[in-house]
Amino acid sequence: MTKKVLKFGGTSVGSIQRIIHASKIIKNEHDKGNKILVVVSAMAGTTNNLVAHSESISKKFNKRELDVLLTSGEQVTSALMAGALNQLGVKAKSWMNWQIPIITEGENTNARIIRIITENVNKYLDSGGVAVIPGFQGVSKLGDITSIGRGGSDATAVAIAKIFQTDSCEIYTDVDGVYSSDPNKIPLAKKIDKISYEEMLELSSLGAKVMQSSAVQTAMMNNIPIQVKSTFTERKGTEINNNDIIDYSKAVTGVAYSKDDAKITLLGVEDKPGVAADIFEPLSNNQINVDMVIQNISTDGKKTDVTFTIKRQDSKNAISLIKANKKIKYENIYMNDKVSKISIVGAGMVATPGVTYKMFRSLSEEKINLLAISTSEIKISVIIDEKSTISAVKKLHKTFNLD
Amino acid sequence: MTKKVLKFGGTSVGSIQRIIHASKIIKNEHDKGNKILVVVSAMAGTTNNLVAHSESISKKFNKRELDVLLTSGEQVTSALMAGALNQLGVKAKSWMNWQIPIITEGENTNARIIRIITENVNKYLDSGGVAVIPGFQGVSKLGDITSIGRGGSDATAVAIAKIFQTDSCEIYTDVDGVYSSDPNKIPLAKKIDKISYEEMLELSSLGAKVMQSSAVQTAMMNNIPIQVKSTFTERKGTEINNNDIIDYSKAVTGVAYSKDDAKITLLGVEDKPGVAADIFEPLSNNQINVDMVIQNISTDGKKTDVTFTIKRQDSKNAISLIKANKKIKYENIYMNDKVSKISIVGAGMVATPGVTYKMFRSLSEEKINLLAISTSEIKISVIIDEKSTISAVKKLHKTFNLD
Repeated sequence: MTKKVLKFGGTSVGSIQRIIHASKIIKNEHDKGNKILVVVSAMAGTTNNLVAHSESISKKFNKRELDVLLTSGEQVTSALMAGALNQLGVKAKSWMNWQIPIITEGENTNARIIRIITENVNKYLDSGGVAVIPGFQGVSKLGDITSIGRGGSDATAVAIAKIFQTDSCEIYTDVDGVYSSDPNKIPLAKKIDKISYEEMLELSSLGAKVMQSSAVQTAMMNNIPIQVKSTFTERKGTEINNNDIIDYSKAVTGVAYSKDDAKITLLGVEDKPGVAADIFEPLSNNQINVDMVIQNISTDGKKTDVTFTIKRQDSKNAISLIKANKKIKYENIYMNDKVSKISIVGAGMVATPGVTYKMFRSLSEEKINLLAISTSEIKISVIIDEKSTISAVKKLHKTFNLD
Repeated sequence: MTKKVLKFGGTSVGSIQRIIHASKIIKNEHDKGNKILVVVSAMAGTTNNLVAHSESISKKFNKRELDVLLTSGEQVTSALMAGALNQLGVKAKSWMNWQIPIITEGENTNARIIRIITENVNKYLDSGGVAVIPGFQGVSKLGDITSIGRGGSDATAVAIAKIFQTDSCEIYTDVDGVYSSDPNKIPLAKKIDKISYEEMLELSSLGAKVMQSSAVQTAMMNNIPIQVKSTFTERKGTEINNNDIIDYSKAVTGVAYSKDDAKITLLGVEDKPGVAADIFEPLSNNQINVDMVIQNISTDGKKTDVTFTIKRQDSKNAISLIKANKKIKYENIYMNDKVSKISIVGAGMVATPGVTYKMFRSLSEEKINLLAISTSEIKISVIIDEKSTISAVKKLHKTFNLD
């Protein structure tokens, strides 16, 4: 007998018809004799509507109450899914996070799952029941409702797979797997059959919407194999697993891009120890994440230029913080938010010489200027002019034989 | 210092603007130094939408899951209301029923509140906080989410008033009080300043939508004074209290009507002991409530006619149950669902002779035929042809000097 987590995302439960469709997938797995834990997201659009409600009351809506508000979305889906399973003759019930309980720590809207009491749910699974669990949420030690951040249903699914020691964790979504690039924009993008946790992690954090990064990270740390599948087709999905299964013959697995970055450049910064810390400290104190940082080599040993990228939504705030910071001396500050970030990702990259060179050359053939570069063992990212995004992705997709 | 329950119904919290408006009413009461418990309904329309969702999955949707589904509505309002109070600078937080807890017994969708643990909420009130509590719901001893039936937020408010021993219980609604008849249909209907529990109970059960009957009953049994107030105007509302405050100079306080009844007549029923029980037993077993019953005097001691009224929605089911019941012998069965029930209600009725006669005479002046009659100490109800409803109500309103 196999124990499985099946997780259904927002679009997979976006209407009553889709919930009924998903309930048939669950029944099918249950009929095979599997023990099934189902994790559901809120119906597509629900969370955004609730956020909009809270924002029309206050832009700084109380975080404890925001969690009470938003978690109602997954509660609704859980009840509907359990009812739909009952209607198909499957024994099933919804388990609210406080009923299990799923214990979290950390602050509201950004908590982490630290413990799940498995006893009662396991008894229920043993009795042949399907447990339907709302994703994205938990309960604090003090008994408050908490949420684990947007997209947190993936994290719930992986945490349940880990703590219930299931044999698999299947993520049902509206695409049929992980692609070498965005299939909506790059028609030649191909589905990847197998991908390593590390590659998936880079792709997730670079804008591939298939799975939430922290969930991939937890899966990697606990070696939980994940299958990404389509709710709407029966085609084989993508298996996310450890590196043992990876085909290293390909240096690059995928090309990702994101358009939510902004680039800030400080010209003529005093080149002395501690200056970088002085620039970034106030940003960090204000929860602004700095992504890429480039500091030019100082030609005269006195002045240098510092360029960094941050989320576009933080750009105004970052500029004011820097201007308000009297510790930093610089000649001028520029901001460019018409940029995009293009990344190539591949576990085989480390073993294949010349990938970086090949990337830069192929972009220069397209007359695309590189505004910033950052590399890791399995990823190379560049910042370019936003209008060249798609031509850059297409070119790289071809260069690395992904078409 | 006064402890108060303020309850806001679905239309009073039907939009973000209305929630913000209600939060100002609450802040105003809190600013006076009162300890405030707020009970909220789901935003108008929410519960119906959720019910429609469940019905598109199954007409017999699992009741446990239906409660999980529907209670999300009040959870949403509670969070938004607590957030709106915070925004006004008022210390406030939402308390889910399982967090308090509010313990219920009885089956899902129709549970009763039996216990509320007051300790933590009282501590919070003592610290100056406003407790916002979702109405309509509770948690069973086994830890399941339960609901106490449609309109149950009134029952929650009264139960909280009782168990927290508050000084008052204020029901904020979209009308500014209890009227002598439906003000939408009878332009001369007047607001009643004071009304007894018994009168209110009769009016509620007769179709006045202002307050749910079982909540009035609980208030009566525990002598909890209730004020019905408008959320949208500052006019004085209606005080519901014990009979001591009632003005007995008026025999009749109000005229109510409802159009959800059906009349069933069995002709030529054997007139022997136990026949009424035989007729009504299967109805009772199928949760069909019989309202009025009239049995004619048998002229020959052998055959009689039995007429009764039930909710219109139950009429088909009742007819089949009676036809399927071989214990009952009768010559013919008739059903009429084009009827309405008109009632006059007044605590002063018992002390005023001739009220019944006056009612019947005034209806006969309008050429309205009485199809059934039922009387109690403070109420006289008649069943008439549905098309005469408004003319009958207008006539009685005038007859008893309510205009």
